[in-house]
Amino acid sequence: MERAIAYAREHRAGFLEELKEWLSIPSVSTLPEHGPDCERAARWLADQLRRAGLRRVELVPSKRQHPLVYGEWVGAPGAPTVLIYGHYDVQPPDPLDQWETPPFQPTVRGEDLYARGASDDKGHVFATVKALASLLATDGLPVNVKVLVEGEEESSGAEISAYVPRHRRRLRADCALVMDSGFFLPGVPAITVGLRGILYAEVEVRGPSSDLHSGTFGGAAPNPFHEVVRLLASLRDRHGRIRIPGFYRPVRPPAESELSAWRALPMDEAEFARMIGARGVVGEEGYSLLERLWARPTLEIHGIGGGFTGPGAKTVLPSRCVAKVSMRLVPDQNPDRVFRAFERYLLRNAHPAYEVTVRKLHTGRPWVISPDEPAVQVAARAWSDTYGAPARFIRVGGSVPVVDLFSRVLGQPVVVTGFGLPDDNLHAPNEKVNLPLLWGGVEAVIRFLHGLAALPGTHPTAPQGAGY
Amino acid sequence: MERAIAYAREHRAGFLEELKEWLSIPSVSTLPEHGPDCERAARWLADQLRRAGLRRVELVPSKRQHPLVYGEWVGAPGAPTVLIYGHYDVQPPDPLDQWETPPFQPTVRGEDLYARGASDDKGHVFATVKALASLLATDGLPVNVKVLVEGEEESSGAEISAYVPRHRRRLRADCALVMDSGFFLPGVPAITVGLRGILYAEVEVRGPSSDLHSGTFGGAAPNPFHEVVRLLASLRDRHGRIRIPGFYRPVRPPAESELSAWRALPMDEAEFARMIGARGVVGEEGYSLLERLWARPTLEIHGIGGGFTGPGAKTVLPSRCVAKVSMRLVPDQNPDRVFRAFERYLLRNAHPAYEVTVRKLHTGRPWVISPDEPAVQVAARAWSDTYGAPARFIRVGGSVPVVDLFSRVLGQPVVVTGFGLPDDNLHAPNEKVNLPLLWGGVEAVIRFLHGLAALPGTHPTAPQGAGY
Repeated sequence: MERAIAYAREHRAGFLEELKEWLSIPSVSTLPEHGPDCERAARWLADQLRRAGLRRVELVPSKRQHPLVYGEWVGAPGAPTVLIYGHYDVQPPDPLDQWETPPFQPTVRGEDLYARGASDDKGHVFATVKALASLLATDGLPVNVKVLVEGEEESSGAEISAYVPRHRRRLRADCALVMDSGFFLPGVPAITVGLRGILYAEVEVRGPSSDLHSGTFGGAAPNPFHEVVRLLASLRDRHGRIRIPGFYRPVRPPAESELSAWRALPMDEAEFARMIGARGVVGEEGYSLLERLWARPTLEIHGIGGGFTGPGAKTVLPSRCVAKVSMRLVPDQNPDRVFRAFERYLLRNAHPAYEVTVRKLHTGRPWVISPDEPAVQVAARAWSDTYGAPARFIRVGGSVPVVDLFSRVLGQPVVVTGFGLPDDNLHAPNEKVNLPLLWGGVEAVIRFLHGLAALPGTHPTAPQGAGY
Repeated sequence: MERAIAYAREHRAGFLEELKEWLSIPSVSTLPEHGPDCERAARWLADQLRRAGLRRVELVPSKRQHPLVYGEWVGAPGAPTVLIYGHYDVQPPDPLDQWETPPFQPTVRGEDLYARGASDDKGHVFATVKALASLLATDGLPVNVKVLVEGEEESSGAEISAYVPRHRRRLRADCALVMDSGFFLPGVPAITVGLRGILYAEVEVRGPSSDLHSGTFGGAAPNPFHEVVRLLASLRDRHGRIRIPGFYRPVRPPAESELSAWRALPMDEAEFARMIGARGVVGEEGYSLLERLWARPTLEIHGIGGGFTGPGAKTVLPSRCVAKVSMRLVPDQNPDRVFRAFERYLLRNAHPAYEVTVRKLHTGRPWVISPDEPAVQVAARAWSDTYGAPARFIRVGGSVPVVDLFSRVLGQPVVVTGFGLPDDNLHAPNEKVNLPLLWGGVEAVIRFLHGLAALPGTHPTAPQGAGY
């Protein structure tokens, strides 16, 4: 292990140049014109995997130019197997004018490397691949690895959702490592042991059959914006509680041990407000800040389309409007059941002059894992040892659909971690990664794989097929 | 008078071709790229006025390419003088794909002429000019006329607002005729004796300093959309009454005679709902449909900008949003006082985690005139005689700022009328004018001018300056 770590340290300069090369490819999966770039980023990664020494490296053919990249090294019979996940696609870079340096011209400033995808998630994938390369170039891999990297995490996730259930055998492993998360705060490494689920919906309200003049018709014609603000405002009471009947019934509170660990984390409401640049915080009364962010469901309004929103004044009484609403869900809420209750609530409360339609856009289940899970403990030790501070067990309020996929479909304990920082500007201008943390990531993965190999009584590994 | 009417009837075919030519000029005043078209439409009109026989025809120089067009004929000393108003600018034509024939290719289908501006307001201006032309080509004008046509009615109205107070002497008249209104219903000609005022405002709500991920931050970060829907919903109670303190205090109810005339008008809630293609009507409890539309103030939401409203799902927790809100005001509400009460209400009720800013975009005062005013009575007779049905005295829920300008600044009784129909699709795709009503309009204006000349005891007309 020490030789692999030494190897990784010696090669940092070269690694950095390679990472910059990869970050220069604008693999934006949500924009069709970047399809060829996504494919190029996938080929670049496949080439890296091959050069690291992985076998059976392939681009899984796809109609959408965002192929999955697969590679494996299963030459350690009897040792545990780990399925490693990441994604090579990135968010669109706009608003471009807010970037200090162009998003696809990776630039080092101080200890940080700025580029779209530097943290989310190319930096994480790259560090993991370099951990494998450093091990294979020195003492070899102590465990079997299977690497699956997708190119649609920021868009549909369609390829991997279809691929995983059809390749259960190929993807069989003792645990999964999802490198798409990070630190709690600078100096506070973390393992993520819970993610919220999501229900994303649209609420359409229709009034008159066409836009009307608000002078001529205002006062008697139904204005869908009145109804939508009334309905949306009615969804939460003045204590910040969501009023959909039955909404909270399945909610399972975190264990007391988890809650008390959260209380020890260095975060309070004033610090949080400062971090997000707001005058204060809001949310459900009776719960701590971290409970509200991690263990309580939410309802957010993302926008309300329709009517007039341009500069100046237009006296339109709009025919319709569409609100984008999502709920973050926690164990054991079921997104489909929540959708039905949400729809029922709105339809029952709608004024008869309006036509209200509720559409489900997508869902994702909440996920939790016990901090006592052996692979999670191994990761915590690897991260603590690498970064010189005890790794904490945190949750993340967002959703990572692949974690639920690996957990439910493949039945694997999933280790979700990484070295991102809260101010990495994911999905925003000036995305960056902290380079010392990234180099630490290479070593943390090396230590994690060694720790897994040393685990007593890991799950028995099935034969890995002919040829190994 | 009969000769003028006969002249107008004989020349309809030629008039129609001329009107189509004018309607082909896309004089959209809100779009800077149409500045040259606005100027072209103004020159076209000035040319028509000159050919009709008006004098001192000029384009009032303007920085914005939307010049006022002025012309006069004041060769009837001792006779009353009437100031005639209209506008040559039109609304933008979008959404273009909903037009059956292109908005600037005027097309006759059945009895209707379809084009942007056909009714609002080029059709009205054209009919009025042709009334003057028909009179001047035959027996001459029985009264003095001053014609003032603006090119910014659909945008700022800035030119005319500045021009009128500076040209009180030039615009001196016994009454004004504003040809920018219409029938109550097909078969029911009308004179408009009341207009609502307006206060148009923007409400901006700010939460975090930049957009956030709704998973990571949702549950504690302030979401401006929650605050805006709560504040906007709180502005009206469940009886449809506006909750701004003092809002209704200055409201002056219509005279009982006016209310009883409204009760005789052929309109009920079911018919109104059918007309606007809605499932039902809404509004303030305890008032009839027409009171709600004409004599009660309203509050409408026109749109809420910010956040994500595109196709699909984006999990953004927006940094800010801006709601467009307007109120229609009735006598004796004062728009500026209402704005201050509105702003105070929102700021007092805002949650401290949000920064709420309220901006006044524009205002217009409400206006009413007595149906007993002689010029109004003359117009009612002219319209009744022309269209073969008694003209009713109605109000209109919208605002026509120039009416207040003529009334308050020039001190003139204002006759607001026209031949528009409720289904003319003003400000919407497939705007049209009913051609038989437009030809009637030419004759109605001829009769109105003759009626004015015959009025006993009209206001004494001041000398009209040298040269006449």
